[in-house]
Amino acid sequence: MSEQPTESYTGFELSREFLEEIQTSIKSEDRERLQERLEPLHPADISQVLEELDADEAKYVLAQLDHETGAEIISNLETETRRRFLRNFSSEELAAYMYHIDSDDAADILNEQPIQVREEIIAHIDDPKVASDVLELLRYEEDRAGGLMAKELVKANVNWSIRQCIEEIRRQAEEVERLYSVYVVDDRDKLLGRVSLKRIVLANDRARVADIYEPDVIAIESYRDAEEVAEIMRRYDLEAIPVINVQGKLLGRITIDDVVDVITEQAEKDQQIMSGLTETPEDDDSVWSLSRARLPWLLIGMMGGLLGARFIGVFEDDLTVIPAMAFFIPLITATGGNVGIQSSTVVVQSLANRSALGDSFWGRMLKVLLVALVNALVISMVVFGFVFISESIKMAFVVAIALFSVVMLASLMGTLTPLALDHFGINPAVASGPFITTANDLLGLAVYFSVAHLLYQL
Amino acid sequence: MSEQPTESYTGFELSREFLEEIQTSIKSEDRERLQERLEPLHPADISQVLEELDADEAKYVLAQLDHETGAEIISNLETETRRRFLRNFSSEELAAYMYHIDSDDAADILNEQPIQVREEIIAHIDDPKVASDVLELLRYEEDRAGGLMAKELVKANVNWSIRQCIEEIRRQAEEVERLYSVYVVDDRDKLLGRVSLKRIVLANDRARVADIYEPDVIAIESYRDAEEVAEIMRRYDLEAIPVINVQGKLLGRITIDDVVDVITEQAEKDQQIMSGLTETPEDDDSVWSLSRARLPWLLIGMMGGLLGARFIGVFEDDLTVIPAMAFFIPLITATGGNVGIQSSTVVVQSLANRSALGDSFWGRMLKVLLVALVNALVISMVVFGFVFISESIKMAFVVAIALFSVVMLASLMGTLTPLALDHFGINPAVASGPFITTANDLLGLAVYFSVAHLLYQL
Repeated sequence: MSEQPTESYTGFELSREFLEEIQTSIKSEDRERLQERLEPLHPADISQVLEELDADEAKYVLAQLDHETGAEIISNLETETRRRFLRNFSSEELAAYMYHIDSDDAADILNEQPIQVREEIIAHIDDPKVASDVLELLRYEEDRAGGLMAKELVKANVNWSIRQCIEEIRRQAEEVERLYSVYVVDDRDKLLGRVSLKRIVLANDRARVADIYEPDVIAIESYRDAEEVAEIMRRYDLEAIPVINVQGKLLGRITIDDVVDVITEQAEKDQQIMSGLTETPEDDDSVWSLSRARLPWLLIGMMGGLLGARFIGVFEDDLTVIPAMAFFIPLITATGGNVGIQSSTVVVQSLANRSALGDSFWGRMLKVLLVALVNALVISMVVFGFVFISESIKMAFVVAIALFSVVMLASLMGTLTPLALDHFGINPAVASGPFITTANDLLGLAVYFSVAHLLYQL
Repeated sequence: MSEQPTESYTGFELSREFLEEIQTSIKSEDRERLQERLEPLHPADISQVLEELDADEAKYVLAQLDHETGAEIISNLETETRRRFLRNFSSEELAAYMYHIDSDDAADILNEQPIQVREEIIAHIDDPKVASDVLELLRYEEDRAGGLMAKELVKANVNWSIRQCIEEIRRQAEEVERLYSVYVVDDRDKLLGRVSLKRIVLANDRARVADIYEPDVIAIESYRDAEEVAEIMRRYDLEAIPVINVQGKLLGRITIDDVVDVITEQAEKDQQIMSGLTETPEDDDSVWSLSRARLPWLLIGMMGGLLGARFIGVFEDDLTVIPAMAFFIPLITATGGNVGIQSSTVVVQSLANRSALGDSFWGRMLKVLLVALVNALVISMVVFGFVFISESIKMAFVVAIALFSVVMLASLMGTLTPLALDHFGINPAVASGPFITTANDLLGLAVYFSVAHLLYQL
């Protein structure tokens, strides 16, 4: 092996020129050039290239690579791209890749296929261990610990010697890619603890597993929520967590890389909910499906706006006399919206971190009200000044009092709504979404026009 | 070691009763009960308990635990809690913990201290290696690869035998907690590659490092952005990444648990920006600092509202004649806001995934416009119907045409703004924030009143 210094490989940037070169090589069936270009790339980067190709081009590229690399590339593709590409393959061809894909990814990929294709692929898997692993994983829901786990792991019986343990690692070495710990089980496969690889390296060959394993192992039941898994792995800084059934039997293992994906996807999903995009906006990115992801909440927002129009219509007579009342409608609705979103975001984040114990419920409400009071006072005083100068003192009172009430109410709604949603098991990020914003708008208008109507009657 | 089955330890839930019991034990100086309660807990859970205590109580608890556990608890505290607690400790006491804290966390903790305290603590660290590691890490900015890395790692010279390599692991075993790979360097500490621990376990004792190391290692320069580190570790599913300087010299190592924190914090920060909370809202959670985190954007939103009021004021005469024009103000501003946020969220997320190559700039713009067109047509047609029934055909035309234009414009703004911000190196999440929402409101009003003015003149 040469002692050439490692180039720091800090991520591949796909350029248009590179893509065109790849496409030209495919068209001219220039295998040599294709391999020369792709060989230095990490499979994750080749996946990125494939994202830009059509199904036939992708199939040609995969045919040039060995099944192991191909399997990793396929696992790394976006769901929708993969579904599109794999239609081009026979069940037999797909089964050949399944041997090399980690069982958790294999189950995910099979889940994406129509049921008949799924059955055909499994029927073509000759290795009964691979087939039964995948079949077992298909039983779990995607957003559960069982749906995240892989069957690949190294386990050792507590009665083994370290030598036997190393033999087992050797036997599994090819199958288990990321090895951090060996899980220790009893004769009935019940999880007893773990031995870190470091400890095995340092142990005496004649030592026994029973002498060196750590019995304190954090494990998780297969039915637990994916987000709960993420939270536990993050809190305890785990690189892998064993999954057990209710009897404590070792079922599989979840590695941190899958959890990183869960965390990232959860954050994206929350942002989409806050923005009023339906949860899976771009399975494919046709104009119609993009529009469909956005329309539902826009239409609900529109209904809110029309309701608001009816509502303002009630005060048509006031408006004819004092058209200046119309001027401050956007000020009222915008401020209410902003305050509501701020309050709910703070609550949602504190719920996510579950640091909610600190104060009692009423202690927290008091703090929320005090913060709202400070904001409401500052804003209404500033606005009072401006409106007093530009309009009249009466109008200034109306706008300031209305704004004050809107800030207080929106703070309260923005705080209580996510707590209530969370209580009923609904993702509280919804509370920063368009539904609540619309409700806040209507509430603000109601307060504003009622205050105006009352004060002008005086 | 007993063969008692492992209880699955799936996260500790802090209860009010437990907290009260701890506080009572502290007050009565009941060390035994305190240790009995805390001993079974993971240090990360004890940190959670400490978050709820005051500085004196926390100091008492830490005094009952060994320095190693204490160090881990301290690293796990929230920044602000830690700052508050550590004021209670002398520099000498703090220095004693520094030996047991990973160098990256130690540097972070020192960075939180006033400069004089920082210098005093370092002066009290007797071990020159610990002191120089921490001093080196203090040089890096927090949001760079250098600021995330720890000095703890195991490296092996390429000319060593595996036996020497294992000796080195033994020597470092206590210091390096998470060991995945041994990094291979030349005589000048230049990074050449890595050997996975699995490979070491399986290697023949007489093998040489040079024979079994993998020369393809993904490394990152110390000046790279923390988010870039996160993106690379996520893409290539890495559990650790070596950090090098521009000459390729091995400086340190970043582990996935730190990157998980970066990803989580980034997602929270983006949500805060979208909600108009200043970036560090709750360093402490006094009413005043909570209000201060929210007020700036509320005031800017308020300015926008007042500007809107002036703007509508221009059309006072129209309003007197047709007060119905006021009814649809909330509909216009809300729809513009919703469309703008949806568009910018989609762009921000595609920027984050850097899947931006797919279509050319103009190809993407065409798609954005087509999606906007579908949404605009659907919404304005529905609104036309409603307004036609409740008001008049003329009003229906005014509102529908204005709404159509607002949706088109807001889509365009929502798409272009994050692209422009990203181009200038500003976090594009700002584009979903209150500033842009306010701008969209004003734009919507301008379009609406201009359209109404024109059509009613006809």
